[in-house]
Amino acid sequence: MTINDLSREELAAFHEEMTKAYQELVSKGLKLDLTRGKPSSEQLDLSNELLALPGAEYKAADGTDTRNYGGLTGITDIRRIWADLLNIDESLVYAADASSLNIEFDCISFAYTFGTQDSPRPWGVEDDIKWICPVPGYDRHHTITEHFGFEMIPVPMLEDGPDMDAVRELVKDPAVKGMWNVPVFGNPTGVTYSERVCRELAEMDTAAPDFRIIWDNAYAVHTLTPSFPEIYDVIGMAAAAGNPNRFWVYTSTSKITFAGAGVSFFASSADNLKWYSSHANVRGIGPNKVNQLAHANFFGDADGVRAHMRKHAASLAPKFSRVLDILNERLGDKGIATWTTPEGGYFISLDVVDGTAARTVELAKEAGIALTAAGSSFPLKKDPNDRNIRLAPSLPPISELETAMDGVCTCALLAACEKALNS
Amino acid sequence: MTINDLSREELAAFHEEMTKAYQELVSKGLKLDLTRGKPSSEQLDLSNELLALPGAEYKAADGTDTRNYGGLTGITDIRRIWADLLNIDESLVYAADASSLNIEFDCISFAYTFGTQDSPRPWGVEDDIKWICPVPGYDRHHTITEHFGFEMIPVPMLEDGPDMDAVRELVKDPAVKGMWNVPVFGNPTGVTYSERVCRELAEMDTAAPDFRIIWDNAYAVHTLTPSFPEIYDVIGMAAAAGNPNRFWVYTSTSKITFAGAGVSFFASSADNLKWYSSHANVRGIGPNKVNQLAHANFFGDADGVRAHMRKHAASLAPKFSRVLDILNERLGDKGIATWTTPEGGYFISLDVVDGTAARTVELAKEAGIALTAAGSSFPLKKDPNDRNIRLAPSLPPISELETAMDGVCTCALLAACEKALNS
Repeated sequence: MTINDLSREELAAFHEEMTKAYQELVSKGLKLDLTRGKPSSEQLDLSNELLALPGAEYKAADGTDTRNYGGLTGITDIRRIWADLLNIDESLVYAADASSLNIEFDCISFAYTFGTQDSPRPWGVEDDIKWICPVPGYDRHHTITEHFGFEMIPVPMLEDGPDMDAVRELVKDPAVKGMWNVPVFGNPTGVTYSERVCRELAEMDTAAPDFRIIWDNAYAVHTLTPSFPEIYDVIGMAAAAGNPNRFWVYTSTSKITFAGAGVSFFASSADNLKWYSSHANVRGIGPNKVNQLAHANFFGDADGVRAHMRKHAASLAPKFSRVLDILNERLGDKGIATWTTPEGGYFISLDVVDGTAARTVELAKEAGIALTAAGSSFPLKKDPNDRNIRLAPSLPPISELETAMDGVCTCALLAACEKALNS
Repeated sequence: MTINDLSREELAAFHEEMTKAYQELVSKGLKLDLTRGKPSSEQLDLSNELLALPGAEYKAADGTDTRNYGGLTGITDIRRIWADLLNIDESLVYAADASSLNIEFDCISFAYTFGTQDSPRPWGVEDDIKWICPVPGYDRHHTITEHFGFEMIPVPMLEDGPDMDAVRELVKDPAVKGMWNVPVFGNPTGVTYSERVCRELAEMDTAAPDFRIIWDNAYAVHTLTPSFPEIYDVIGMAAAAGNPNRFWVYTSTSKITFAGAGVSFFASSADNLKWYSSHANVRGIGPNKVNQLAHANFFGDADGVRAHMRKHAASLAPKFSRVLDILNERLGDKGIATWTTPEGGYFISLDVVDGTAARTVELAKEAGIALTAAGSSFPLKKDPNDRNIRLAPSLPPISELETAMDGVCTCALLAACEKALNS
């Protein structure tokens, strides 16, 4: 029986029931946090061996003393492993410091100040820069393009990637210079782009000669199931289609080893890497190679990474299951919400009744349950339908997660009742 | 007897002698490198304990789990130690990833794109930006300002800092937005700014409201003697003079622990840190805190750093001594060169006969001795007098250093003879 099927009286009764449930929730004085996709202590413990690595060693396989200056590309030992995981030639993969986001910002900043090698002029002197943002998407991505003053154009995320009809239409505008993507187990939808979408992105014509796709493959190996997603070689696809410099590809070990203390990777065409280096080599001398060696020795090879990710899955999958169970139990027959059932990544994307996401988050906050602010996954943090809530189940222990999710369901139901009663 | 005192015949004979000596040098087939200020293996070994740190620990003193996301300021454990060394309040010192140069570039890039909080407009939309460069100076500094298209104005480095009469005159121009400085044991002169110079830089009036002094205190504790230089609180001096946001202060552990795998520091006024964070927080989430904890535990406190630097001095001082001995023995009475006698830092600055620095470096190169390119320490790599050569004695073992320096002296003498004969 959905809420819509209730008579006015039944609805009033249900509202009263939810109000009472909510008051009980508030009275518990909770302090729970589902805001950010942070790994839990249990997950971080999986990499504790790294705290004492590289140990006595400091020479890379090619003899490089990792303790000294030099080497913007990073060391082969770790580039080799991620080239394998990303299905990209090792020569096109640079290993850097911990954060992909840093390199994404730098690439945009370099293009803004100096232009790319394909740009008629620096982006900063263009009248207008537009950027395609599949929604819901990653808030920190949007914050970067907002910071540079780009106009962000939302495109709906479908089941196998962004709405390509909309994308193909938008790139006819030469002011559209780029696009955000989290192509595998996307934040927050969990969507993985199909081979068809990858190929269309690589092959489509764009009006801007310097159109760039930011391919943030943050969750490339972050499976919640026994199998790993296929990683498509978008750089190769784009080269074959005559668009060799289209993709800027990023990933990192942030949610593999230690968040913020790992290794990130930037992969692109040889020309793009040359362009990047021409600026990054001015910015500094090179990344922390000691930490790269520690990571290379910790994993050994790509299968070592996959074995490690299975341990993460063993910790995360039960949490995702419990969240989905509770959503099913509490909301499954109420017709007030839909949600994703991700096979990887860090998030569950919850859509509540239009116009009630902000109210749900507010109610939860007052009950001591911190949720990511409603609208966070949209450009300028404005969800036009006030519908989407990003749930991040990784950090809390499972018992807290259960309490929090039960509370969130109560809040969503109460908000839905309020809206139905006032309409 | 100097070369100038020789008769034409004596000069020809000396030229022949040097030509013969040079031919012998070439015949040795050397492959020696005095180009860059890299620490030697022996110096890097001093920090090998770090390769296995932080070991079993991962919690900062305040309970922060260094393995997880967050904390743009860096952890207190290490900020505290460098606040002490830099004579700056801990709240004004951020700990970041390995490279000061990265943060220097970012500050300039942020000012270029967004302006500082004191700027009437972003630097990038100004007609003209000028930058004061004490010469000789650090080549990578000049490369950054060249990259952003700033006009670099050289100012002579005197014995206790840059020529302040020239500086005071230049800052009357509102297009002059900033100035490079390595205030202690400068690269390549070894000059340490006096308290008077520090105070004048802090107190002087500038036409630009957003004038910024980049204070790259890379060698703050890099003594070659038993004593450490006094570090003046330029941020405090500037605040007292009503110029609170004048200084951007940087340092790092690059030549203390592992070059490129250490911790860097950015210190400035609270307002400047707020401005920096408003951009850096968009660029990413925070630095490698695990490595910061490793460094904090390795040193313990400021005295731990000083004790460690005494070990570096024990390795470096004999190398500097040998270079100075050889310069004295070979060139002391020839009247063709002067050089610095630094009490710290990484370089000896050698001035040869005007118009012969490039030739000396060329001769050395043909004899298998790599020197930093002549002119490297000047903006656009152009030494107007073709006089200056930067010597970096740290990397080679002492026997190679002796061979290389003896060769360099032969080259400088031969180049001087050639010039004298052709004039």
